[in-house]
Amino acid sequence: MTNQQCGTSRIAGCQFTLHPMSDNFVDIILSALDEVDSTKVWKDTDDVTTCVRGKMVHVFDVTKAIFLHAAKTGEHVAMSGTFSIGCPGDNEADVYMAESDEPMNLEKSQTIDQQAGCKFSLYPLGREDYMDKIYEQIDLSKARGVEVSASHYMTRLDGDVKDIFNAIEESFVAVQEKVSHTTMTFTISANSPSNK
Amino acid sequence: MTNQQCGTSRIAGCQFTLHPMSDNFVDIILSALDEVDSTKVWKDTDDVTTCVRGKMVHVFDVTKAIFLHAAKTGEHVAMSGTFSIGCPGDNEADVYMAESDEPMNLEKSQTIDQQAGCKFSLYPLGREDYMDKIYEQIDLSKARGVEVSASHYMTRLDGDVKDIFNAIEESFVAVQEKVSHTTMTFTISANSPSNK
Repeated sequence: MTNQQCGTSRIAGCQFTLHPMSDNFVDIILSALDEVDSTKVWKDTDDVTTCVRGKMVHVFDVTKAIFLHAAKTGEHVAMSGTFSIGCPGDNEADVYMAESDEPMNLEKSQTIDQQAGCKFSLYPLGREDYMDKIYEQIDLSKARGVEVSASHYMTRLDGDVKDIFNAIEESFVAVQEKVSHTTMTFTISANSPSNK
Repeated sequence: MTNQQCGTSRIAGCQFTLHPMSDNFVDIILSALDEVDSTKVWKDTDDVTTCVRGKMVHVFDVTKAIFLHAAKTGEHVAMSGTFSIGCPGDNEADVYMAESDEPMNLEKSQTIDQQAGCKFSLYPLGREDYMDKIYEQIDLSKARGVEVSASHYMTRLDGDVKDIFNAIEESFVAVQEKVSHTTMTFTISANSPSNK
């Protein structure tokens, strides 16, 4: 059942998987987790997913940084995940909401240039006018450095990983201002041997 | 933007990624795609995701079979995806809705025994009472052979891959009968070296 552990605080979260297509996947995952400063988020990893929770700014900062540090190895690396906010019941770890807004990984992340392809979908929940909310709030024409195209059930973005994460973060932030419970799924892939 | 290509037919679809954590990932993916009979679905693969569309029964049959054939290699293999139905506008490839209901991969899939962990979330869209719809329609106590537990934003299932897919398919089928536009995200992982 969805959202069994879902409050009223504006704590955000992301459940994601990081998949290096390499025999060396354990080292790549552990190195990425090790290089990233996750002191400002609640974090839990099990054999299926990693979950980070806290202020939106830090949830995006940490998720982006983990992907960048794994992708800079040059291996084919993919990440799939779901960002969520406003889930009724999600309040454990509210202590992380007291952190300052300064992203801990921004400086280091900015030094990594990495191209990728990404597909994402926004789900504003509990609203009959959810499609209007999407169209009203997302203006991807402002997404600098990112090529935008349509895909079944999803929107595709191509460009630098930092620009891609900026675009989906801006979209998520805008929609959740209007729709209390919003989720956003994404899959991002770098260094794929396949032609686009 | 979400759902730019989203009709009114009951065509279902799944956008997924298959990730073998192995240097041999290309062969494992191509072998799995090759072993699976996907004649009853519309299928498209690019460098980020694979999309299959058609009748619900075939979309689940093909997605499950691809994961099983990849996982039986013994490598650590994960799949993340989103099932969708009722997306306003999704009608291209309606020809696949004329296929019979006989699943093409069921017999072969039944011979593969594979344990896995899976996390999934259901998103009934466009309804203010979406949480009620979830709780009303999903009865995971009937999910035979599957251990059910709560996770942030998701529900976790552990057991045989076939039983896991049966459980999420039953949930999806039940919810979409009540809520026209429903999506369901999932991540399934097999042969992980991590302890649960």
